Amino acid sequence: MTPPPVPSQPTASTAGTVAELGEFGLIEVIVPLFAQHPDVLVGPGDDAAVVAIGANQVLVSTDLLIENRHFRRDWSSAEDIGHKAAAANLSDLNAMGGRTTALVVALAIPGDLEVAWVRDLASGIAAEAALVGASVVGGDVTASDQVSIAVTVLGTCAAPVLRSGARAGDVVAVCGRLGWAGAGFHVLGRGFRSPRAVVEAHRRPRPPYSAGPEAASAGATAMIDLSDGLLADLGHVAAASGCSIDVQSAAFEVEEPLRAVGAALGLDPLQFVLTGGDDYALAATFPAGTTLPEGWTVVGRVAAGGAVVTVDGVAYDGPAGHEHFR
Amino acid sequence: MTPPPVPSQPTASTAGTVAELGEFGLIEVIVPLFAQHPDVLVGPGDDAAVVAIGANQVLVSTDLLIENRHFRRDWSSAEDIGHKAAAANLSDLNAMGGRTTALVVALAIPGDLEVAWVRDLASGIAAEAALVGASVVGGDVTASDQVSIAVTVLGTCAAPVLRSGARAGDVVAVCGRLGWAGAGFHVLGRGFRSPRAVVEAHRRPRPPYSAGPEAASAGATAMIDLSDGLLADLGHVAAASGCSIDVQSAAFEVEEPLRAVGAALGLDPLQFVLTGGDDYALAATFPAGTTLPEGWTVVGRVAAGGAVVTVDGVAYDGPAGHEHFR
Repeated sequence: MTPPPVPSQPTASTAGTVAELGEFGLIEVIVPLFAQHPDVLVGPGDDAAVVAIGANQVLVSTDLLIENRHFRRDWSSAEDIGHKAAAANLSDLNAMGGRTTALVVALAIPGDLEVAWVRDLASGIAAEAALVGASVVGGDVTASDQVSIAVTVLGTCAAPVLRSGARAGDVVAVCGRLGWAGAGFHVLGRGFRSPRAVVEAHRRPRPPYSAGPEAASAGATAMIDLSDGLLADLGHVAAASGCSIDVQSAAFEVEEPLRAVGAALGLDPLQFVLTGGDDYALAATFPAGTTLPEGWTVVGRVAAGGAVVTVDGVAYDGPAGHEHFR
Repeated sequence: MTPPPVPSQPTASTAGTVAELGEFGLIEVIVPLFAQHPDVLVGPGDDAAVVAIGANQVLVSTDLLIENRHFRRDWSSAEDIGHKAAAANLSDLNAMGGRTTALVVALAIPGDLEVAWVRDLASGIAAEAALVGASVVGGDVTASDQVSIAVTVLGTCAAPVLRSGARAGDVVAVCGRLGWAGAGFHVLGRGFRSPRAVVEAHRRPRPPYSAGPEAASAGATAMIDLSDGLLADLGHVAAASGCSIDVQSAAFEVEEPLRAVGAALGLDPLQFVLTGGDDYALAATFPAGTTLPEGWTVVGRVAAGGAVVTVDGVAYDGPAGHEHFR
């Protein structure tokens, strides 16, 4: 059912260090090592994998959050960090058009951490999971020098929406907040704690959890959640679908808190919208003429070939999205 | 829809640090925070959780391995570490009487790590997964100061065998190697590289993967995999089942490499058998008179009440099993 994995480059080099190769180069080295059995309907490379278990399509996805890389204990409360760790994973199944049933959480923590901190982290994870009716069903706790939080989600969907289904002529639409968490990150990085709305958005994202299944029902051809930033994530859709995407900057309403941050920091606030990560909004493509579900806004269009993403017809010259090891 | 979570103790204290409370105390604080929905058939506290998805019982379990806590890069090759990370997880589903279908792997690594090391780690994970016909279906890669490997496994079983089913009169049996990895750990810890058999057992455990489903079919009443050490893990069975377990030391064949390590280090080699962790053998209880599947050896008996584990009728006075933060 699934073709054997094929390296996307003839021979991926394994010389040198991870930093030299970069995150996506490393993934190209690793993924071909993983043979996929026939019960794997969707293997590595999408927001979640899909495994056939009995008559059901079971979705699974995992994310590992590392202290001082993905969160800072002096920027966010333990409860915030729990919400965010769960949200990042729940969002992955949302982006497949699915819904999470269960989470497992593996936690590495220093022995001198306060028990109350861990309790609040667990409360945050449980509260975020409850938003979609999911249960935290198990986990692991181990000692470590820094806090690491590995969350894996398990869920189901009627029919998964992949990154690879966008077709020329489709419209590109988004649902959820764009750029708020990224603006909050900028603000916190400069030592400020306001505007409160963007700082809160960084600490505790609000993924549009019903939007994924609704988009799937409405006929979305491709979907992805926005964790690296809109342009970077649309780049994954364009690459997987073998098409190009053009985004119209005039389609975005740049909201007041983003304009305030832009003015204060001397930055174009559109940059937050186009490249800010960690809001866990959704981007999807739909056949032209589709009546979009509530909350979705058309922001662009799919064209044939190219596998590139442009803004108003040209390459975007602002900062790129997030990549690890860079 | 979900009843509010009820703490399992009137008020578990959350004062102080994780090290002061200990691993199991911490788990008692966290687990009551996780409300379980009706589709959760087995929640936290067993080797794996069991979630109903359609007509199927889906098993899920997760383990996080941290560099210099669970493995050392100067003691084990990357491929060894991959095998062991996968084995620790596959073993959890084995201990439920299940079989793993899919794994996801979240990896945190320093940027200066060699790409070849990561490739070999991935190869080891894939090779161990292939032993049970499972696929690595997805993952996550992120930057970190030390190597962390979070593996989550997904699988199925006919009817899960829990820790809580042991009954007075049952026999206790084991399957797989006991104490080899622990003896290897002692040897490596003193700077030696032989006997090779125990060093290899530490580097690359050999869980008896067919034994779990076979024990379930044969009517095992309780089962657990041996990661913390036989007595410690039987203690989990005794506590969950509300019964006591007595182990007969004469039932164990203390094999030659263990005797050699004991003689060289001036230790009773039975200590490795009773308390050595990380072999991922299985211990199970069966109704008296059960014809045990091949590879299982009776080593003890279940008695009513007490929730304690004894050796030859008395408390064991050797070293205890492993607990994190201690």
